[in-house]
Amino acid sequence: MSTAEPLTAVPFTSRDYAARMARVVDDGRAAGLDGVLVAPGPDLVWLTGYQPTAITERLTMLLLTTDREPTLLVPTLERPDAERAEGAPATTITGWTDGVDPYDVVRGLLRPDGTYGVSDNTWAMHLLGLQSALPGSRYESLTRRLPMLRAVKDDNELARLAAAGAAADATYEEILRVRFAGRRETDVAADLADLLRAHGHEQVDFTVVGSGPNGANPHHEAGVRKIQEGDCVVLDFGGLMFGYGSDTSRTVCVGEPTAQIREVHEVVRRAQQAGVEAVRPGVACQEVDRAARRLITEAGYGEQFIHRTGHGIGVTTHEPPYMIEGEELPMVPGMCFSVEPGVYLPGSFGVRIEDIVTVTPDGARRLNTTDHGLRIVE
Amino acid sequence: MSTAEPLTAVPFTSRDYAARMARVVDDGRAAGLDGVLVAPGPDLVWLTGYQPTAITERLTMLLLTTDREPTLLVPTLERPDAERAEGAPATTITGWTDGVDPYDVVRGLLRPDGTYGVSDNTWAMHLLGLQSALPGSRYESLTRRLPMLRAVKDDNELARLAAAGAAADATYEEILRVRFAGRRETDVAADLADLLRAHGHEQVDFTVVGSGPNGANPHHEAGVRKIQEGDCVVLDFGGLMFGYGSDTSRTVCVGEPTAQIREVHEVVRRAQQAGVEAVRPGVACQEVDRAARRLITEAGYGEQFIHRTGHGIGVTTHEPPYMIEGEELPMVPGMCFSVEPGVYLPGSFGVRIEDIVTVTPDGARRLNTTDHGLRIVE
Repeated sequence: MSTAEPLTAVPFTSRDYAARMARVVDDGRAAGLDGVLVAPGPDLVWLTGYQPTAITERLTMLLLTTDREPTLLVPTLERPDAERAEGAPATTITGWTDGVDPYDVVRGLLRPDGTYGVSDNTWAMHLLGLQSALPGSRYESLTRRLPMLRAVKDDNELARLAAAGAAADATYEEILRVRFAGRRETDVAADLADLLRAHGHEQVDFTVVGSGPNGANPHHEAGVRKIQEGDCVVLDFGGLMFGYGSDTSRTVCVGEPTAQIREVHEVVRRAQQAGVEAVRPGVACQEVDRAARRLITEAGYGEQFIHRTGHGIGVTTHEPPYMIEGEELPMVPGMCFSVEPGVYLPGSFGVRIEDIVTVTPDGARRLNTTDHGLRIVE
Repeated sequence: MSTAEPLTAVPFTSRDYAARMARVVDDGRAAGLDGVLVAPGPDLVWLTGYQPTAITERLTMLLLTTDREPTLLVPTLERPDAERAEGAPATTITGWTDGVDPYDVVRGLLRPDGTYGVSDNTWAMHLLGLQSALPGSRYESLTRRLPMLRAVKDDNELARLAAAGAAADATYEEILRVRFAGRRETDVAADLADLLRAHGHEQVDFTVVGSGPNGANPHHEAGVRKIQEGDCVVLDFGGLMFGYGSDTSRTVCVGEPTAQIREVHEVVRRAQQAGVEAVRPGVACQEVDRAARRLITEAGYGEQFIHRTGHGIGVTTHEPPYMIEGEELPMVPGMCFSVEPGVYLPGSFGVRIEDIVTVTPDGARRLNTTDHGLRIVE
């Protein structure tokens, strides 16, 4: 650790959670919704601090509607856990017991002809239960109707994301000093996980080590392949710190890079820079994708850039807004997302460079600040 | 480890997966469905062996319909992972690329007026996407329409469940020898996790240590409470071994039990025995719940038995069939589920005893066989 200071975060209070719930109801009303229904997952964590120990077939649902106070419906036997959540005092907790039809209970709390937003990861069985219990009601994807719900971060959230980013940066600096050649990808991945934890992450979500041809599969994690002298290696790692995500990618070379690796790396580096430079309040998210893609396409690698340029980050490492063609939502100060163009040459190698950035009043600030150059490892 | 033999399981083959898929289509047809749509999760693992590294907003869906061969729709950048799944050769893999509307792709593969079963944990955003793309189609909860889909285990599955149960039993025998008094619940929970892994579990899902009053909350996991002399302690632990679940509970006492603890424990022990004795092919699942509950109610603790008596187990540790009032599905040989009555005295203590059992042609066989008596620990 580079510091002897204990790492801490300012706790979220019941008042913080109450304010978020009130904003959701207001935003929902403005979007024509009679309320928002939230099942366990990141939206529920963000709104209440509550995360059941397991997400099961037993319905847990936060009902944020225009016509009553926030109600948290929980299975009776999970009620003590729910009551301990920091945001619980801002809700009325209602238990339902095994043997009761929970959708019947929800029916009594919603309008029969209402239109409700539903959190994206709500189980289909629950949505079908609601549709069946309230045949006159309608449901819409929360992401589609309120994509910006969690997108703009407050100062406390930004501080957590910055801490997570700094820990990921420290991890990168240290991984440059470990041995790559002759070790398996999974060995380096384990080093990344250890370093993220040593730097304060409470959860490691992914540690991609894509060496040589494996780097050409953007969703390759880490395998048994032994890393070889001359390999180009994509590193992409992150997790949660104080409940907020990190996600950064750098591509390194084991020993001297070939001219082709140098060329592709430089194209991706410039594309990433162009993507970040396109970040500005009021500009559509898709412009970040276009800026990065244009540069890669002009360099002749457009067909090898096979994913969008970025995704939002917060209590999850993948959330709106998405930096993708067709996303016309304007950027707003406080939004945080990745800018991560890549080029993938099947059978040969891949290159990806990724920083988390936050939108500022006049542009972007990177939450990852390590060198973008092609670093040589041993 | 009690054995020097390496633990292995007979691998599932592409043919096994193909047979499961064919059965799903047949069962669906018999239930009036034009097909079954399966998102990532236990159903997809069971049907194809495929588990994406993360479940995200990008649609992955297995389409098992009456009018075409099995089709696995995946995001293009996850295609290489999907192709490596053991069951992949039994499907046609179709990729969709960022920027395309995946629901448009699904529309071309389904009947506009079809009725489809949807796996329970499919994200609501995907179901809403399908409902919007195919307004004339209808969807039903897979659990509601085909609750028995994964319920009857074949010999290979049974062998894995038996191995998981034996490992959980070995864990229980060893935990009886560790110190309880003066240690935190989380310390004993960590011991349980270590033992499950040492006995071959690749994943630990829960390690409940509910001491004293914490035992009266059936979903308490493990906390910072120091276990005290005289505490009644509920232990409930399990995870996955060879991809199949373990889940067993025993209640122990730290030093001499009070008369009340002895009495309640004996009631629960007899109720658990009665529940297991109710297991028989052709009998409704709810009879297992009734048999256990009757005994507890007659002893005067009916109000303190606040959950159903059991749940199925397989590639997950919670799945149909459920042993609950109202569940009229008949038991079938090869079904595997828990029998786990409990009594919870708020502020005081709780008792739960749980075995996994499998239905045999003439009754039940326990996959957990450790002593049901009230064991004393130090």
